[in-house]
Amino acid sequence: MKYTKKMKTKFIDIEAGKFISIIHERQAKELGIFPLDRIELTNLHTKKKIITVVDTTDSMVKKEEIGLFEDVRKKLGLRKKGEILVSPVSTPESVKYIKKKMDGNSLNEKEIKKIVEDITSNHLSQIEASAFVSAVYMEGLNLQEIIFMTKALVDGGKNLKLNKEFIADKHSIGGINGRATMILVPIVAANGLYIPKTSSRSITSAAGTADSMEVLAKVNLSMKKIKKIVNKTGGVIVWGGGLDLAPGDDKIITIEHPLNLDPPGQVIASVMAKKVSVGAKYLVIDIPLGQYTKVKTKENAETMAKKFLEVAKKMGIKCEVLLTDGTKPNGPAFGAALEAKHAMEILEGKVFDNLAEKSCQLAGALFELTGKTKKGKGYEKAVELLQSGKALEKMKEIIKAQGKKVDCSEKIKLSSKKIEIKSDKNGKIERIDLKALKEIAREAGAPVHKKAGLLLKVFEDDKIRKGQVLFEIHGENQRRLEIAKKRALKDNPIKLGEIIIAKIK
Amino acid sequence: MKYTKKMKTKFIDIEAGKFISIIHERQAKELGIFPLDRIELTNLHTKKKIITVVDTTDSMVKKEEIGLFEDVRKKLGLRKKGEILVSPVSTPESVKYIKKKMDGNSLNEKEIKKIVEDITSNHLSQIEASAFVSAVYMEGLNLQEIIFMTKALVDGGKNLKLNKEFIADKHSIGGINGRATMILVPIVAANGLYIPKTSSRSITSAAGTADSMEVLAKVNLSMKKIKKIVNKTGGVIVWGGGLDLAPGDDKIITIEHPLNLDPPGQVIASVMAKKVSVGAKYLVIDIPLGQYTKVKTKENAETMAKKFLEVAKKMGIKCEVLLTDGTKPNGPAFGAALEAKHAMEILEGKVFDNLAEKSCQLAGALFELTGKTKKGKGYEKAVELLQSGKALEKMKEIIKAQGKKVDCSEKIKLSSKKIEIKSDKNGKIERIDLKALKEIAREAGAPVHKKAGLLLKVFEDDKIRKGQVLFEIHGENQRRLEIAKKRALKDNPIKLGEIIIAKIK
Repeated sequence: MKYTKKMKTKFIDIEAGKFISIIHERQAKELGIFPLDRIELTNLHTKKKIITVVDTTDSMVKKEEIGLFEDVRKKLGLRKKGEILVSPVSTPESVKYIKKKMDGNSLNEKEIKKIVEDITSNHLSQIEASAFVSAVYMEGLNLQEIIFMTKALVDGGKNLKLNKEFIADKHSIGGINGRATMILVPIVAANGLYIPKTSSRSITSAAGTADSMEVLAKVNLSMKKIKKIVNKTGGVIVWGGGLDLAPGDDKIITIEHPLNLDPPGQVIASVMAKKVSVGAKYLVIDIPLGQYTKVKTKENAETMAKKFLEVAKKMGIKCEVLLTDGTKPNGPAFGAALEAKHAMEILEGKVFDNLAEKSCQLAGALFELTGKTKKGKGYEKAVELLQSGKALEKMKEIIKAQGKKVDCSEKIKLSSKKIEIKSDKNGKIERIDLKALKEIAREAGAPVHKKAGLLLKVFEDDKIRKGQVLFEIHGENQRRLEIAKKRALKDNPIKLGEIIIAKIK
Repeated sequence: MKYTKKMKTKFIDIEAGKFISIIHERQAKELGIFPLDRIELTNLHTKKKIITVVDTTDSMVKKEEIGLFEDVRKKLGLRKKGEILVSPVSTPESVKYIKKKMDGNSLNEKEIKKIVEDITSNHLSQIEASAFVSAVYMEGLNLQEIIFMTKALVDGGKNLKLNKEFIADKHSIGGINGRATMILVPIVAANGLYIPKTSSRSITSAAGTADSMEVLAKVNLSMKKIKKIVNKTGGVIVWGGGLDLAPGDDKIITIEHPLNLDPPGQVIASVMAKKVSVGAKYLVIDIPLGQYTKVKTKENAETMAKKFLEVAKKMGIKCEVLLTDGTKPNGPAFGAALEAKHAMEILEGKVFDNLAEKSCQLAGALFELTGKTKKGKGYEKAVELLQSGKALEKMKEIIKAQGKKVDCSEKIKLSSKKIEIKSDKNGKIERIDLKALKEIAREAGAPVHKKAGLLLKVFEDDKIRKGQVLFEIHGENQRRLEIAKKRALKDNPIKLGEIIIAKIK
């Protein structure tokens, strides 16, 4: 757009949820405006200004009109139809920086900060933001850039200021099932640490920690409330999505999602930004390794771990990274209610399986990082807190503080629509296809329906008989149960090896 | 989105110009839909299906509703409110191919064809399309890929089938001013060749050929009409934008524009696709070299020229590339009417300047390519056709066939709002800043207002006196004239060298 122009307003009685204005295609051509360009609108009476993105139409408005959605009309304080001033907005500086990255150059702190700011505030269009994400994927971020990105993400959001010395946190990169967080948080809090754990809801799995915790208590809490609970109990397990912690990260993820991009540098900055925002000083990171997890080779995991450690150091966080076995299920449950029940059973001392083991290892690592426990004794301490019932007691305290729904494994309501999948032959379980199990749970209604999911009844290396139950599917309703069953029979996620490989006479 | 769902329709009485549906944010989360995902909608009665892009809202529709814009409602043939079926659509294959390119791999013919198809039909979101354009910019296209891209762009659009032997065309890459096309086309047609020339309107310059030709005749013609005129007169000069020739190219350019990307491979495919679509068999390409032109170094121009030649050969086109001097103005005019007048003056034999020279060189190259003129005699032949008045006669024929407005330089109406910019000292003209001149013309109202522009009165190396007129600005109106004048005085686009550098006594 070359110069300022007065245009007639046309109000469009719809809230678009973002600032968009609409002009006629021919007008756009004359003014040299392209769809997704930015223009500035000025209320001629109050001089109030806002910047909107332009979309073009050949029918919604006449040539001399500019269409304003409700959000824009309100923000400009316009009541009656009339004229407004439309002015060009120059391309944001950050577009130049994006181009610089595309050309293979590294970005400095100021440049990354500006890009993150402009993405967060919607000053960059999706075309521009996508070019940045693509460039980061294709060129990578060096260590300096990851640190700048982390800082920029933190600066763009809110902070939880706890004013405590021992603030701990934990992060797991792309596992498939099992709620280690719900076991670790009470163990850690029971040892006098503070752990304000924000978690996500499921995107592609059968449940996220926030989904599972929501079976037991409220997870959609305000910053004020979170602070109060952590100060009182030492721990909290909440949904992080509504807290405005590093909001730029959410915007970047929205762009990465359709392309299924996950550049490691961006993942590290994203994780570290959330941890810095809650004030964590001690951090343990779990990278499950396996065919279906996010990080697939030990080499990649080690490279990533080193970068995590360096960024953490720079941000003043003591950090340890554990590479864990992601080839086996973390406990038998897939789905919000089933996974919550299993976590509670571990806390209640009814089970001690590989998920319990991993949770204690992670908690133990935190104990050693803080110096609360001697080197080599962290895991023992965690197991002791679990087996003594102190962790369970702490979990009940946390659940109560978060608006208790249920705090006992036996009282968790499961679906009445269940079906058992049985083995059609004798054999030994050789391999369990975690991805297929997750998909079956999703077909049954997870993660939307909390009771839907899947419960394994056998484990690797078990010898089984024909007719023995392999797993239960819990369905949202009969229809979805049938769909999930069909999928289960088709995908056959439990692979048997023959006990007798050959008979030689 | 995981499974099919019935939803209540809410009609939104607006034509969006594309297929968009709107669902509530919470519903989107539950269904696992992200903004810009695609979903399929089915009319439950007629079974009519369409694919739309999803946008999310927290206010426009209720959770159980799906908002349908007029375009979608009509296409689905829905009359009354009711329910429709909403189904997941899997990610297009082409997203995988985009990722492949991002990972540094070359794409094959099928993959490029699919990407172009999906961009053309809006099956790819702007995020995905931008990732492709970014990858092409960052990784480049190899020769094979340029050829595949050319074919894919051609296949996606219409073709002009002239059924003639000698179909010629010309293309100029990013010059600043001067309408060589309007001189070359009648010269070429006067020699018995067929030249169906499609041109663009200005995006960043003071005028495009289509803008300038529109001063003399209609340029927005149908394919049928173009065919008829070329068959009769041998030539046509029209706007190519509305003809659906290689429409994928226009979509890709829309994505490149905000990032100001111009990857050479894509430029070559874009040019060649348009030429193949009009059936050109002989092609001359003009690459102006200069500080302000698109191609800045001889080395880059030569690399580009070689690729042009190879792609042309593969597409069965005889091609020659001329690198021309883009440091000096191509004639004195900037702006649609002024440039049209200057071109007509050349055809009328009133002027023979560097623009006339270049036009004859380009036409001569075409004559030699076709074999109509002996090697080394093409330029002479072109000059002869120009000086004999045959080219002027042909131009008048073409103008008449295209719906004549005016066909004589003296009858072209210029602006009555003019201002002269004079030199404030004696000196010798050392350098003319073409970019500044173009910007002054645009400030005066070009390219939107055809009479607005700038006319140079001096040339490089001229010795001038204080007070001598350097150039005239022609304004859309008095206000814009003032703005342009201010810019002219500030930018000072005509640089004088001192005639006397020093006085030594």
